Amino acid sequence: MAESYDAVDVIRAKRDRGELSDGQIDWVIDAYTRGVVADEQMSALAMAVLLNGMNRREISRWTAAMIASGERMDFSSLSRPTADKHSTGGVGDKITLPLAPLVAACGVAVPQLSGRGLGHTGGTLDKLESIPGWRATLSNLELMRQLEDVGAVICAAGDGLAPADKKLYALRDVTGTVEAIPLIASSIMSKKIAEGTGALVLDVKVGSGAFMKSYDDARELAETMVALGTDAGVRTVALLTDMSTPLGLTAGNALEVRESVEVLAGGGPADVVELTLALAREMLLAAGVEDVDPADRLRDGSAMDAWRRMIAAQGGDPDTTLPVAPETHVVTARSSGVLTKLDALAIGVAAWRLGAGRARKEDPVSAVAGVELHAKPGDAVQTGQPLLTLHTDDPSRFDRALEALEDVVEVGTEAGAGRPLILDRVAP
Amino acid sequence: MAESYDAVDVIRAKRDRGELSDGQIDWVIDAYTRGVVADEQMSALAMAVLLNGMNRREISRWTAAMIASGERMDFSSLSRPTADKHSTGGVGDKITLPLAPLVAACGVAVPQLSGRGLGHTGGTLDKLESIPGWRATLSNLELMRQLEDVGAVICAAGDGLAPADKKLYALRDVTGTVEAIPLIASSIMSKKIAEGTGALVLDVKVGSGAFMKSYDDARELAETMVALGTDAGVRTVALLTDMSTPLGLTAGNALEVRESVEVLAGGGPADVVELTLALAREMLLAAGVEDVDPADRLRDGSAMDAWRRMIAAQGGDPDTTLPVAPETHVVTARSSGVLTKLDALAIGVAAWRLGAGRARKEDPVSAVAGVELHAKPGDAVQTGQPLLTLHTDDPSRFDRALEALEDVVEVGTEAGAGRPLILDRVAP
Repeated sequence: MAESYDAVDVIRAKRDRGELSDGQIDWVIDAYTRGVVADEQMSALAMAVLLNGMNRREISRWTAAMIASGERMDFSSLSRPTADKHSTGGVGDKITLPLAPLVAACGVAVPQLSGRGLGHTGGTLDKLESIPGWRATLSNLELMRQLEDVGAVICAAGDGLAPADKKLYALRDVTGTVEAIPLIASSIMSKKIAEGTGALVLDVKVGSGAFMKSYDDARELAETMVALGTDAGVRTVALLTDMSTPLGLTAGNALEVRESVEVLAGGGPADVVELTLALAREMLLAAGVEDVDPADRLRDGSAMDAWRRMIAAQGGDPDTTLPVAPETHVVTARSSGVLTKLDALAIGVAAWRLGAGRARKEDPVSAVAGVELHAKPGDAVQTGQPLLTLHTDDPSRFDRALEALEDVVEVGTEAGAGRPLILDRVAP
Repeated sequence: MAESYDAVDVIRAKRDRGELSDGQIDWVIDAYTRGVVADEQMSALAMAVLLNGMNRREISRWTAAMIASGERMDFSSLSRPTADKHSTGGVGDKITLPLAPLVAACGVAVPQLSGRGLGHTGGTLDKLESIPGWRATLSNLELMRQLEDVGAVICAAGDGLAPADKKLYALRDVTGTVEAIPLIASSIMSKKIAEGTGALVLDVKVGSGAFMKSYDDARELAETMVALGTDAGVRTVALLTDMSTPLGLTAGNALEVRESVEVLAGGGPADVVELTLALAREMLLAAGVEDVDPADRLRDGSAMDAWRRMIAAQGGDPDTTLPVAPETHVVTARSSGVLTKLDALAIGVAAWRLGAGRARKEDPVSAVAGVELHAKPGDAVQTGQPLLTLHTDDPSRFDRALEALEDVVEVGTEAGAGRPLILDRVAP
């Protein structure tokens, strides 16, 4: 960082639709991390980036500068190739839980550094913490050892990875600058690249329950992230997947762990199984492992074995009984016909209000709260039949959850064509 | 302020090219003044306003909200009408000094609340402070009494006027969001309207030495400000005037006071006299005084009498000897011909570097530093003839001042058409 720049000059350059130079980007990210560029300067720059965009070179450099702000992990000493998965977040998206041990069972190590939930989408760590004794925080040495011994780790990302991203994300959250594809892409990819994975599969969600509501935005985000990964030497591919309706039949922490274990046991909802296998195949392909079919590993129990070892290695008892909500409330169908819509966002918000998610990052979450679905789009339903069961610790939460569910379903006379779960694939 | 809003919602509305409601604008300005909306949120909003604009209703409301953040003065108890002048700032722009006493001598009270200079344009208060003993700070009672007794006051604007603007201006200065016409217009007009003047004449500068380099931008700013004044019940008119070359033959604090006194004595450079009279006529017209010619008041010495009373009322001795620079350096013409360009910005930067201006608002300024011009565009010059005299306390400053003057003049074979001083007039 020999050269120094002026923050106002950098802001003006992007404000006036110019390209930022490599030197400007390196300087502004480093200076922001060190507190030399102030929050109010970075938020003005973020708004200018949101409105005027960045090209591929700028986004790559921005990402590299965020990676350079912290430490970078290195898995090259492992005896196996590594592959990681990142989902942009959806309702009922518990895929990481069966996926990581499944891919490990196929011979590829999965270093899955995850986060907690904020808003209506659940966090992977929150889900696993509903298993008594399981701990999310590992040292780098424990992480490496578990990757070598078990082949799969799901744990909290350390503060040392891309600290610039951490600071910038908190700023964007309060300044209306979250929704900038260059900033979203560089935020995700800086952490994933710093984690040191050799291959990366992105699950970019599209639909009401997803951050990206439109296909075009999701496609642009996927293409941007695949380009960033590729530029950084990580074999990266993305699937665009539907998030107009929840994944599986549960949204909530312990509820989703239970469903994940069903999948690992060879059962579980068809959509969760389909997406888990599709993502596993992409991870194996990207990691260069071509002769293993993950469906076999589900059937033969080796994925379940990996899950049990993974949970036990982090202090959890895989044979424990998961906690159950003391209070439940059943929502029934108001008419008979075919379920044509079951809105992901409404279910996500209801689960959140029941206690499964948090509004501020310091809030606690409930292990047992959530929503259980008894029907999915395409299913025939009859008046009075149970559609949803709401779970909570606190029955005073039912009212606001039910408000969110006002228009959650539509019942028609015949099933529509049905949207496929996997919409598209984006490769370099 | 009964209703409450969310800062991120307000930012998003403008980011997504929406109109802000009256309630949103009132809330965000009030909440920012109270510290409820954070600097990083306001800077993101300012960038969104800069890039996406505001319409006339939004700018009027924004201005009204900034006025409502502080106190408002009231001159309606005075026995005379009031008129004020505001210049967007130029090099050698000492017009306020002869103008305020001249208009007072014509029977209109001039409450000229002024600021200090920042960057390459000088501040009116800095200029007057080169008169030993003169003080810029008056109480509201002293201000009212002097307006009644003398008819002209040039003093510092109190902190109570539009505090929201003061806070927002400081933020814009460090976040690359100064150059937004809606924000520039509302900043100027909130202070001028809060001052309580009945009539207002705006001198909007265009050219290299001005904030607005292009005619179109200056015109848009002038139209926006005239609309804001009119909406607020202030009779407002604007002149667009040339700032491609300095006004008069001096740029610097005591140097400009000397030149102003020459004008009041009936002499002085033609351009300074022309602009002083043009602005005086506009102020009289806007104040409803139509039977007085300000040129008579210059000739008969009554403007000079008002100046002497105005300076004395604020502790200055009108007969004092102004301070003179201990160090001077003469720049001579390199070739013979007709002076076709004498760049205002270069002269302004040179004067600044000689000590006449400040880089940060806490810096002191030199009373004696500045640049004296010996020729103006259109004049014939000969090789070796003095073009400029640089004045400073500190001879080590000459080198950087001379760097700024590298391309300050162009000498050609014949005079161009010459740009008129007064380019246009904008009325409601």
